[in-house]
Amino acid sequence: MSFTGGYPRLLGLVLSALFVVSCASSQQPGAREPKTTAEAEAFVDPLPSWNDTATKVQILEFVRAVSDPDDPAFVEPTKRVATFDNDGTLWVEQPVYAEMAFALHRVRDLAKVHPEWATKEPFKAVIEGDREALVAAGSRGLVEIVLASHTGMSATLFDTIATEWVRDARHPKFEEPYTELAYQPQLELLRYLEANGFKTFIVSGGSVEFMRTYAEQVYGIPPERVVGSSIETRYEVQGGKPSLLRLPQIDFVDDKVGKPVGIHKHVGLRPILAFGNSDGDLEMLQWTTVGSGGVRLGLVLHHDDAEREYAYDRESKVGTLDKALDLAGQSGWVVVSMKNDWNTVFTEK
Amino acid sequence: MSFTGGYPRLLGLVLSALFVVSCASSQQPGAREPKTTAEAEAFVDPLPSWNDTATKVQILEFVRAVSDPDDPAFVEPTKRVATFDNDGTLWVEQPVYAEMAFALHRVRDLAKVHPEWATKEPFKAVIEGDREALVAAGSRGLVEIVLASHTGMSATLFDTIATEWVRDARHPKFEEPYTELAYQPQLELLRYLEANGFKTFIVSGGSVEFMRTYAEQVYGIPPERVVGSSIETRYEVQGGKPSLLRLPQIDFVDDKVGKPVGIHKHVGLRPILAFGNSDGDLEMLQWTTVGSGGVRLGLVLHHDDAEREYAYDRESKVGTLDKALDLAGQSGWVVVSMKNDWNTVFTEK
Repeated sequence: MSFTGGYPRLLGLVLSALFVVSCASSQQPGAREPKTTAEAEAFVDPLPSWNDTATKVQILEFVRAVSDPDDPAFVEPTKRVATFDNDGTLWVEQPVYAEMAFALHRVRDLAKVHPEWATKEPFKAVIEGDREALVAAGSRGLVEIVLASHTGMSATLFDTIATEWVRDARHPKFEEPYTELAYQPQLELLRYLEANGFKTFIVSGGSVEFMRTYAEQVYGIPPERVVGSSIETRYEVQGGKPSLLRLPQIDFVDDKVGKPVGIHKHVGLRPILAFGNSDGDLEMLQWTTVGSGGVRLGLVLHHDDAEREYAYDRESKVGTLDKALDLAGQSGWVVVSMKNDWNTVFTEK
Repeated sequence: MSFTGGYPRLLGLVLSALFVVSCASSQQPGAREPKTTAEAEAFVDPLPSWNDTATKVQILEFVRAVSDPDDPAFVEPTKRVATFDNDGTLWVEQPVYAEMAFALHRVRDLAKVHPEWATKEPFKAVIEGDREALVAAGSRGLVEIVLASHTGMSATLFDTIATEWVRDARHPKFEEPYTELAYQPQLELLRYLEANGFKTFIVSGGSVEFMRTYAEQVYGIPPERVVGSSIETRYEVQGGKPSLLRLPQIDFVDDKVGKPVGIHKHVGLRPILAFGNSDGDLEMLQWTTVGSGGVRLGLVLHHDDAEREYAYDRESKVGTLDKALDLAGQSGWVVVSMKNDWNTVFTEK
């Protein structure tokens, strides 16, 4: 059995998966179709927000196979690691990453005590809302904004500031807190994987401390299972009180080639499932699926749903999906269509 | 209720703890003495290798208090983080850290392909077993030995090399694999904490990849809950095969002031219990217990048992316990006497 084929092989795979499913004696939740009326009544779909498409069959079949001790694809529970990108994979990233909205908000807030920023780029651009000047400031300008907004305070104070922003901010299109904009199908997938012995992790380019302020509440993922970018911190005792001071220096960038490194540092195991949505996830998908010697599952969320969310890929400045989309076929990564594979995008209230 | 007193306050604390224990209606395992014959028969001591001393009472009472929703010291399970140093706290560190023995072994092994080391310090000292020259090489020499022995290969190859060494090496005094030299009372404490909702972590100066080769097997602690020192790694794809290359450069030193930083990076929560044995654990103990605003427990293992293990503290080159011993009293850290508090040191076979 192999998941290395792309879309062209889907039909065969679906048929063979259905065959395996119908023959299986395993009792993995949701991995088996009911045979009798009583079973049909007891059957609970673990992924109700996922349409009954080939994508769903591939996910169910993968989880069944790695969880079944009698299957050649079986993986010990201790090694069932699944990694998820955050922005654009678990929640909305358009029109701007939540954390970038936080950084811009904070720069405008700090401008009150930094009058010199009124004439100094990239801060001037942020204060004046000058998008062109901001783009012109490039990645160096971006780093300045991140450091100015994220450092120079204790870890405890940053946690408070970020928590308050996340609580109060509203998304410009949906006019909801960002914490209401997690994707319901992904929450179901996280719980389904955990119910099948998987250890789930967020592995994202966002800063680890920012994500940790909401990851447990929004995704049910505790702080120690969030891997992200970080800045340098220094332990200090002042007036007998210990604290961690956030220094204006990048420690680690958990994006692109940084993702396998971050996974190695924090998780210490190679994932068997990785879910991303942009070229920033390409190396994580590679590291998970290529040459690992077992059955692995790479998933790429394709934002093709302008009506319910957004439609973007190759040309987008936020969450560019270009190379990873080209490589998906030959790499056997499953491209998940938001439009076709999900019947629900956000949790209904 | 407070655990901020040192030895002078022990008697009062024991009496008050016993009072609390006898009044408690909570059913936390092991935290309550049996009242009836039937209960006495059902009572299972969760820490049988710990003698019934004041130390054991303090541990049991702390766990009961933070686990009891009706106790003012209650801590939500998601925040019950316990961190343990490794060498000298969970297993033997004398006469030389296992990982240093590994590094020296590996340098002697690599000397075959490095003829120039025969005349170059600190390698010459290692090859010739010249302790004085090795000490003279100082911390700079040490870093050279660590980098030469730990880098220049893929993460996968390092894992294989370290795993084989750990399997084959024997401790010079006990003539057993190091993996047989974990402390039985600590294994009981880890399981007892986990049974009471704690998340347990290793936070140690040793390199994270080395510890991860045996932590799950020896301590039941999975890779993602091991925090340690690390070297830089780089993600590369060569001939279509992804790998992580270990570079000859220190990334992070998880010792002394590095421990609170490492905990913040990986765990993202301040511990409520920390267990160490040397001055390298001082800052972790401080960060856990000082000014945290709740009931916290700091524990320091005192190696005072020359008969069953080793006796050392202030003057020892390995695992120096000097400042942390002085500060234990005023900081309320419980000094655990290996000789008096443990009836068993190693797991009996």
